[in-house]
Amino acid sequence: MKRRRFLGRGLALGASLAAWSTAGRAQSPPDDPSKVLGHPKRPLGARAAFETASRKAFRGKTDEHGANMTPLGDLVGTITPSELHFTVFRGGVPEIDPGQHRLLIHGLVERPVILTMTEIKRLPSVSRIYFLECSGNGQSEWQGPRLPTVQGTHGLTSTSEWTGVSLALLLREAGVDPRASWIIAEGADATGNERSIPMAKAMDDVLVAYGQNGEALRPDNGYPLRLIVPGWEGNVSVKWLRRLTVVDRAYMTRMETVEHALLMPDGTARRFTVVMDAKSVITSPSGGQRLTGPGFYEITGLAWSGRGRIRRVEVSTDAGITWRRATLQEPVLPKAHVRFRLPWRWDGSQAILQSRCVDETGDVQPTLREIVKVRGVNSVHHNNAIQSWKVAADGAVSNVQV
Amino acid sequence: MKRRRFLGRGLALGASLAAWSTAGRAQSPPDDPSKVLGHPKRPLGARAAFETASRKAFRGKTDEHGANMTPLGDLVGTITPSELHFTVFRGGVPEIDPGQHRLLIHGLVERPVILTMTEIKRLPSVSRIYFLECSGNGQSEWQGPRLPTVQGTHGLTSTSEWTGVSLALLLREAGVDPRASWIIAEGADATGNERSIPMAKAMDDVLVAYGQNGEALRPDNGYPLRLIVPGWEGNVSVKWLRRLTVVDRAYMTRMETVEHALLMPDGTARRFTVVMDAKSVITSPSGGQRLTGPGFYEITGLAWSGRGRIRRVEVSTDAGITWRRATLQEPVLPKAHVRFRLPWRWDGSQAILQSRCVDETGDVQPTLREIVKVRGVNSVHHNNAIQSWKVAADGAVSNVQV
Repeated sequence: MKRRRFLGRGLALGASLAAWSTAGRAQSPPDDPSKVLGHPKRPLGARAAFETASRKAFRGKTDEHGANMTPLGDLVGTITPSELHFTVFRGGVPEIDPGQHRLLIHGLVERPVILTMTEIKRLPSVSRIYFLECSGNGQSEWQGPRLPTVQGTHGLTSTSEWTGVSLALLLREAGVDPRASWIIAEGADATGNERSIPMAKAMDDVLVAYGQNGEALRPDNGYPLRLIVPGWEGNVSVKWLRRLTVVDRAYMTRMETVEHALLMPDGTARRFTVVMDAKSVITSPSGGQRLTGPGFYEITGLAWSGRGRIRRVEVSTDAGITWRRATLQEPVLPKAHVRFRLPWRWDGSQAILQSRCVDETGDVQPTLREIVKVRGVNSVHHNNAIQSWKVAADGAVSNVQV
Repeated sequence: MKRRRFLGRGLALGASLAAWSTAGRAQSPPDDPSKVLGHPKRPLGARAAFETASRKAFRGKTDEHGANMTPLGDLVGTITPSELHFTVFRGGVPEIDPGQHRLLIHGLVERPVILTMTEIKRLPSVSRIYFLECSGNGQSEWQGPRLPTVQGTHGLTSTSEWTGVSLALLLREAGVDPRASWIIAEGADATGNERSIPMAKAMDDVLVAYGQNGEALRPDNGYPLRLIVPGWEGNVSVKWLRRLTVVDRAYMTRMETVEHALLMPDGTARRFTVVMDAKSVITSPSGGQRLTGPGFYEITGLAWSGRGRIRRVEVSTDAGITWRRATLQEPVLPKAHVRFRLPWRWDGSQAILQSRCVDETGDVQPTLREIVKVRGVNSVHHNNAIQSWKVAADGAVSNVQV
């Protein structure tokens, strides 16, 4: 089906290829690398010197407070290289000796335990591909377009294959008291990040992870141990995890009161808005990129939802007047980035590109106007609005609001 | 089902945890990283200094000839970090400026083309997770156990998410002549690696790839462009791809005659044995590792087949007398590493660990004895024999043949 659909566009693309052929031949031939011996064997396969994609620092009061944003506009596929996975921290990234690290599980349990990393790695493990997204992703964009690139507007989300132990297994082995209803997870960094997690979620799909994309977690992402709380705001996936306390109530930690509350127009605050809503964004063409002339382009981007699988992504090139359904890259996994793609022939006139998605629960990605109507403009967190990119007649792509 | 199956072992594991709790407490407490400020924001999230997993060089006549092997025994999950992906080369790794690189498609086509990297990246793309395996993987083990670790015996296979353009699309756009039946792919390295690929495969699932695990290919893996020929011996996935010639016969290149032929006992040679057969290996516990005493362990490893999906993996702890079915990590993707796992309680006596797999076409992983009976011991390539690891009474794990 997919192949047939694309073949319908074969003629238009063929014309482009013919033009390119001429262009390619007009240029001087490349230096021939086959005439020289290449570099020798080496223990690690480094990046090419020509590749400069890197994380961008996002505000923060000191160098040890703030974020590193993933360069989504430079990436392809769905897996985020661990080196480019976004991070948020408030007290810097601790250096932890895995040989000294311990996980304490205590509180309302029958058998409190202290586990070493070696002991944790002996337990039954699972590997799953999940996105993480900071709830503050897109916080610059509440009052209109501000940051020029998709790295700035959406770079606080990434996807990895995480490996670790099921939290439910650890809790069952520790023996949870019937009075227990929440757990408190605590990190070993200088801010001692703590988050409250209801028992139902803790016993569902949460991982105590030590692996990321096949190898150990990177320090920026919680080495040697972190929680992975699938589909929930990234801060709940406590990094540098050192303690799980089983308790009978939420602890109303700093992140659950001051930092992660949603300020509503009537002066009240929404708290524990932890599930990440359905969201999508076009990563190419996106802000800061430039189309090199009319012709064929692929519109591609990412979609994700904290509630499960993405069911549908649609793309508009005329500011939302008409929409076409994009192809989703299989396999479409729950609570993971999904790559969507749509072939597009740019005619050289101004275009406004947008994507919108629906997840398997029916959660629909809203416009910014729709969110603001309910929540006002004082929210910092949970901006899942449709993003618009303007392609100008000269091919320049910029961040706009329509 | 999975959860229930594990819970049946809850009691045994609970006992282990109780023992660990005591052990953990007896040790001195770790230094507290929460009392010091961590390191500041940085553009790339480097590995922890404590993590030393790296590729091992495997023979070769010079430093620019040979292989770098993936440390499978150190890895978890299914994705191989790009930095640790295996490589094989015979003339070193060329440094190629992507701005100067070109792909020529010519021969029996209506519209020969030369494409720049920018042009290739404008085309419709696909991302798929595939394993690559060098057909020489396991070549040291034909006449009995020789290399001590799984990195040595099996480290010439890795799995990545590859992104690129469908070769079928490129060939259709170039317009393949009805007389054409093969394509010849040529690399831009100092050995000018060439491989012949039948048109049926070329029009099936082959990719012209520029992306690996979300970012650009690493130079060791063909930067800026390589073929990905799913399920076939790695050498056919020509790296540093610069030319595709559409022809009417196989070219019987060096790799298809001298280097990759299978020498049979009767003096004849099998050629074009390109499909990688069903194979599995236990990566933990594996050679060179050491169990720290009787108790619970997870037996885990990887299985893969060039013919499609792995259907079943079984594990034996008694040298193949009895077998138990392992759990396969979902999603089980075709032509990709699959992680398998089996809970095991080691009683402290000698054990011989083995895994064997069957793929969806019914291809069964054989013993070395079965292969040698047919092919003799002069084969270099395509050793997919069942691997045995001996756990000695002192916990030491070593490579043995049974």
